[in-house]
Amino acid sequence: MNYKHQFFNDYAETAHPACIQKLSEHTLQQEAGYGLDSVSAHAATLIRAKLGVANDTPVHFISGGTQANLTVIGSLLRPHEAVIAAESGHIAANETGAIEATGHKVIHTPHVNGKLTPEAIEQVVRTHTNEHSVKPRMVFISQATELGTVYSRIELEAVRAVCDAHGLWLYIDGARLGNALYSANAPCAWHDIARVADVFYIGGTKNGALLGEAIVFPNLALNDDFRYALKQRGALLAKGRVIASQFVALFEHDLYAELAQHANACAMRVRSVLSELGVVFYTDSLTNQQFPMLPNAVVEALQQHYGFYTWKVLNERKSVVRFVFSWATPMTMVDELLTDTKRLLHP
Amino acid sequence: MNYKHQFFNDYAETAHPACIQKLSEHTLQQEAGYGLDSVSAHAATLIRAKLGVANDTPVHFISGGTQANLTVIGSLLRPHEAVIAAESGHIAANETGAIEATGHKVIHTPHVNGKLTPEAIEQVVRTHTNEHSVKPRMVFISQATELGTVYSRIELEAVRAVCDAHGLWLYIDGARLGNALYSANAPCAWHDIARVADVFYIGGTKNGALLGEAIVFPNLALNDDFRYALKQRGALLAKGRVIASQFVALFEHDLYAELAQHANACAMRVRSVLSELGVVFYTDSLTNQQFPMLPNAVVEALQQHYGFYTWKVLNERKSVVRFVFSWATPMTMVDELLTDTKRLLHP
Amino acid sequence: MNYKHQFFNDYAETAHPACIQKLSEHTLQQEAGYGLDSVSAHAATLIRAKLGVANDTPVHFISGGTQANLTVIGSLLRPHEAVIAAESGHIAANETGAIEATGHKVIHTPHVNGKLTPEAIEQVVRTHTNEHSVKPRMVFISQATELGTVYSRIELEAVRAVCDAHGLWLYIDGARLGNALYSANAPCAWHDIARVADVFYIGGTKNGALLGEAIVFPNLALNDDFRYALKQRGALLAKGRVIASQFVALFEHDLYAELAQHANACAMRVRSVLSELGVVFYTDSLTNQQFPMLPNAVVEALQQHYGFYTWKVLNERKSVVRFVFSWATPMTMVDELLTDTKRLLHP
Amino acid sequence: MNYKHQFFNDYAETAHPACIQKLSEHTLQQEAGYGLDSVSAHAATLIRAKLGVANDTPVHFISGGTQANLTVIGSLLRPHEAVIAAESGHIAANETGAIEATGHKVIHTPHVNGKLTPEAIEQVVRTHTNEHSVKPRMVFISQATELGTVYSRIELEAVRAVCDAHGLWLYIDGARLGNALYSANAPCAWHDIARVADVFYIGGTKNGALLGEAIVFPNLALNDDFRYALKQRGALLAKGRVIASQFVALFEHDLYAELAQHANACAMRVRSVLSELGVVFYTDSLTNQQFPMLPNAVVEALQQHYGFYTWKVLNERKSVVRFVFSWATPMTMVDELLTDTKRLLHP
Repeated sequence: MNYKHQFFNDYAETAHPACIQKLSEHTLQQEAGYGLDSVSAHAATLIRAKLGVANDTPVHFISGGTQANLTVIGSLLRPHEAVIAAESGHIAANETGAIEATGHKVIHTPHVNGKLTPEAIEQVVRTHTNEHSVKPRMVFISQATELGTVYSRIELEAVRAVCDAHGLWLYIDGARLGNALYSANAPCAWHDIARVADVFYIGGTKNGALLGEAIVFPNLALNDDFRYALKQRGALLAKGRVIASQFVALFEHDLYAELAQHANACAMRVRSVLSELGVVFYTDSLTNQQFPMLPNAVVEALQQHYGFYTWKVLNERKSVVRFVFSWATPMTMVDELLTDTKRLLHP
Repeated sequence: MNYKHQFFNDYAETAHPACIQKLSEHTLQQEAGYGLDSVSAHAATLIRAKLGVANDTPVHFISGGTQANLTVIGSLLRPHEAVIAAESGHIAANETGAIEATGHKVIHTPHVNGKLTPEAIEQVVRTHTNEHSVKPRMVFISQATELGTVYSRIELEAVRAVCDAHGLWLYIDGARLGNALYSANAPCAWHDIARVADVFYIGGTKNGALLGEAIVFPNLALNDDFRYALKQRGALLAKGRVIASQFVALFEHDLYAELAQHANACAMRVRSVLSELGVVFYTDSLTNQQFPMLPNAVVEALQQHYGFYTWKVLNERKSVVRFVFSWATPMTMVDELLTDTKRLLHP
Repeated sequence: MNYKHQFFNDYAETAHPACIQKLSEHTLQQEAGYGLDSVSAHAATLIRAKLGVANDTPVHFISGGTQANLTVIGSLLRPHEAVIAAESGHIAANETGAIEATGHKVIHTPHVNGKLTPEAIEQVVRTHTNEHSVKPRMVFISQATELGTVYSRIELEAVRAVCDAHGLWLYIDGARLGNALYSANAPCAWHDIARVADVFYIGGTKNGALLGEAIVFPNLALNDDFRYALKQRGALLAKGRVIASQFVALFEHDLYAELAQHANACAMRVRSVLSELGVVFYTDSLTNQQFPMLPNAVVEALQQHYGFYTWKVLNERKSVVRFVFSWATPMTMVDELLTDTKRLLHP
Repeated sequence: MNYKHQFFNDYAETAHPACIQKLSEHTLQQEAGYGLDSVSAHAATLIRAKLGVANDTPVHFISGGTQANLTVIGSLLRPHEAVIAAESGHIAANETGAIEATGHKVIHTPHVNGKLTPEAIEQVVRTHTNEHSVKPRMVFISQATELGTVYSRIELEAVRAVCDAHGLWLYIDGARLGNALYSANAPCAWHDIARVADVFYIGGTKNGALLGEAIVFPNLALNDDFRYALKQRGALLAKGRVIASQFVALFEHDLYAELAQHANACAMRVRSVLSELGVVFYTDSLTNQQFPMLPNAVVEALQQHYGFYTWKVLNERKSVVRFVFSWATPMTMVDELLTDTKRLLHP
């Protein structure tokens, strides 16, 4: 299909030029293998500074989000232990049983606006009390969520409090962490994430990098033997510098913030303009994914020219669609999309 | 340690400039995710042409060798089935139990010069005959081997014949396939690999790419649902083009051959010069890894200036060391190493 | 707690005397190990006759239901394949992630009266269409269900039809198969089970045996290498005759039917008497588990004298409780329970 | 084949009458499920008394040895951790990859007379030093070994010392623990086992029980959540009393010792008589398995009348065979076997 532009996802373009440029520096400088190189060390230092965490906080670089999730979760849980996730959570719905393939049940819960609630966690704990069911040991949340919503600092602290009350670790999937942190009103900050999470990852792939995510262990004890886990799951790249260089490019001059802000700005323009046109949104997203409800005829007409997914057919007249904006989305294309939509809604 | 040069491995430099250059082309062209992009399709076409295989032969791109091994083997075997490997094989010795973590036993056998022999395979089959032991179902060999040796076409056919006789699949780990194919006298060719193997991978990481390996399934039936396996093991990159572009760079003008030949040439100069000096080699390597036996005093003196591993301490006087050469090794450094070694051997 | 009697479960007594008696016959006769003995062969023959299946239909004896489930499911599915079960299903709720520990996701669906519906299966198939989620490959149902209900022949055929339409295997957990088959109006028969299921097991533990379940493969192809699976999961007992003898005792004179009928009769008396007293039941159970809704005060008073579980607290006034009856439940105890309940309900 | 008698194994007869008798007591007494019954508690008390361990030492009953091994090892190790075993060890050679199926590598070592030596363990530790190979975390030994030999108290302490030096747990497979403890000169005692092992099991199946092994955790910390592991692996029998009753029968009047002594006595008579005839034995077995080397013609002649395995064909003239004796072996049959052998050796 020959689209004017596609809004299917936020990984359709290769990478921000700065990320590619960084790879071309010092290419013949020999470095140690498997993440023990100087570029990885430098990238880790930049990330720790941004987070405001101690110099010994472990940071590991890994090629993708599913790999990060299965390597962390598979490494930490004993066989009878399980992870709790919203049914909309990435590990529950979109990773082909990657967690189960490491031997662990993902306990699904209903979500509220894409979020896992303290009440849902409590309910799982109440119903898993003996050896006839798995033992909940970890909570998985995505920030931003798969539905574009963002946990506020207060919500994160509430989830953390439930974890503390029941001996659960908190793991945050930050595939779109930039979009969450740089969304309107800054609902939570870098240091909040590092404070509430036992382990989390900072997504690079969806915010301008060629590839790569950075796993951070604020809870140092959990990092024990983690490099074995990385190697065993095929996640320890020979050339650690390849991913690390992406994070150097993203964090040395705060490009990470800039790219996330652009993607969010595109999204908020769509939200604002369509809302004024009376369009209702399926979720309270303040980030780079927007889920407007549109007449099916409008959806079909738009899909002639733009790439995007129908998220959910609501009935014969209306559907929820998903528009995803990235660091590379031209604002002119956003405007064109809006103009076309407006015309179709009010011909 | 501040080395003149290091010969620890063949992944110390970032990547060949052509591989990085390729990434910087068409960066804003929107592509489909997860390997369904036009760059992946193009790279697959180039690889099929090189192999001389049919247009429907499946080719998948993946970030590293351990990941390739565990994804392929974990996908194909039923739980009670096992893979046979030489005890020097990568999956047996160097992958932190990656295969076992997918639930399968790796049956170790003695090796001859780094190779798995038909006799060793036969012996395993003879001793695994009922449900009280695992069922051998796959044979794993590395071409070139971990000791730098190369299976000739005739040796490959002999292994294949044993596989056929006993219903075993043959999987070839080609992390250093280029070094094997372009070694002296061309012991076997691209199409031989595609003909004898059910599945194999072509290594990019150790032959000039930023990262990446290409998995090929000459046995089409085994490709069934393999994309599920890729996704489940965290091996399906969002931006498939990142790895695919490396293979385009390596195969569009036969850079792959050129780089492997250079690494081999460095190695053969070392082999030739040291042999003339009376040095004996631990293995019959014709590829980019060389294992000379040197006096311990010489080893220690060299390690003040060059990075390389002591492979095996033989006794109080002698050790086997490993020198690895890459596409990026300056021949001047090889010469310097040889000059220094010569001087130390015959002061 | 010193109860008059307990109705917690149907495995509180050791075994029917005939089952113990059978063990004491021919004890010194030497038999082959691991299920290749003459007693296992005899028990299999009796079971095949009861089912009306061919002489080559494989039958295996195993020590318990969770073991049967994990060995069968773990043996048949490829890593990315999943099994669909009602959220009330035993593998979903009561087996400590046994299936996930073999690497497979259990896809939970809502249940209707304890049953998995064709619609629920269809819905799973519709939402699992590509490699980003697991691939549904098997359907798990329990007959009788965990809520005491029974799939009729027509319902079984409807489930089978959905399986056929989508390439799914049908596995029936028959922990309480006797209670289902011998419930009022005989909703389905032995040969129906063997006809609709690809594989199922006949429960012994909950119907008078010391221990043991019999796994049957009407779909012969699925039996391939199953003895490897049994051995690998620790399920291949050295003395196969121990479990097989239980099935000889249960099936040589149709004791299996008799015991199931007794348990059901106890249950139906409770259902009938309490219904007349206006008690509403949580499920339409016609088998040996009954789930009446009783005032909390009545529940508490009864629990002073009888052992049984509160299944679900509905509100401040009412709860669902579970009474389970077995082959060994004295009808006098049932009557006593009913008399006490009646007195408490209508003092 | 219609044998006079078979010496294939020690589980050819059903069970000692006392074990069956015990099952027939109090059969209608209602007991709690899943090992929380009074019979299990009683059996555990008898076992603790025999071992001389504290009242809180955990004891669990399980149906077989492979199940015990996979449940214990799978529960204790993290994914990258491995267990060291002699290549003749049961988990290495005879359990169909049961340990690997829980995700862990079994590191094979050469054996000396069926035993794992401290030197072999040290060698493994020396060669597994970083994240590129698995991390040794547990040592597995069998007492008696698969070749009938017995670790002395001093040997056990030496293995323990190596474990302590390297942070390894010691697990003892006691499938034939009785045969070891009651062999000539009592090389080690019950309390030695409980002192050196972190966890071990006492075999019932091969010493007179219908089925069952008793897992004991002298290292209490390792018992944490072990009941979850039992349930998850399908090892938690609904009727715990079935296995526990076997151990009551075996330990309440020291029947366990008596049965092991009988089996050993049969074996030692064979060893003594054949040795006098000049027969050499393959291993220094003092227990119920004997491995004489016999002329092939004698082996063939004997196998017309007696059941036993050829263990290893040494050459065209001689083979090692295995004779196994049990609690139920009639001494008259031993004598008959010896008479026939003598006649064949010296016609």
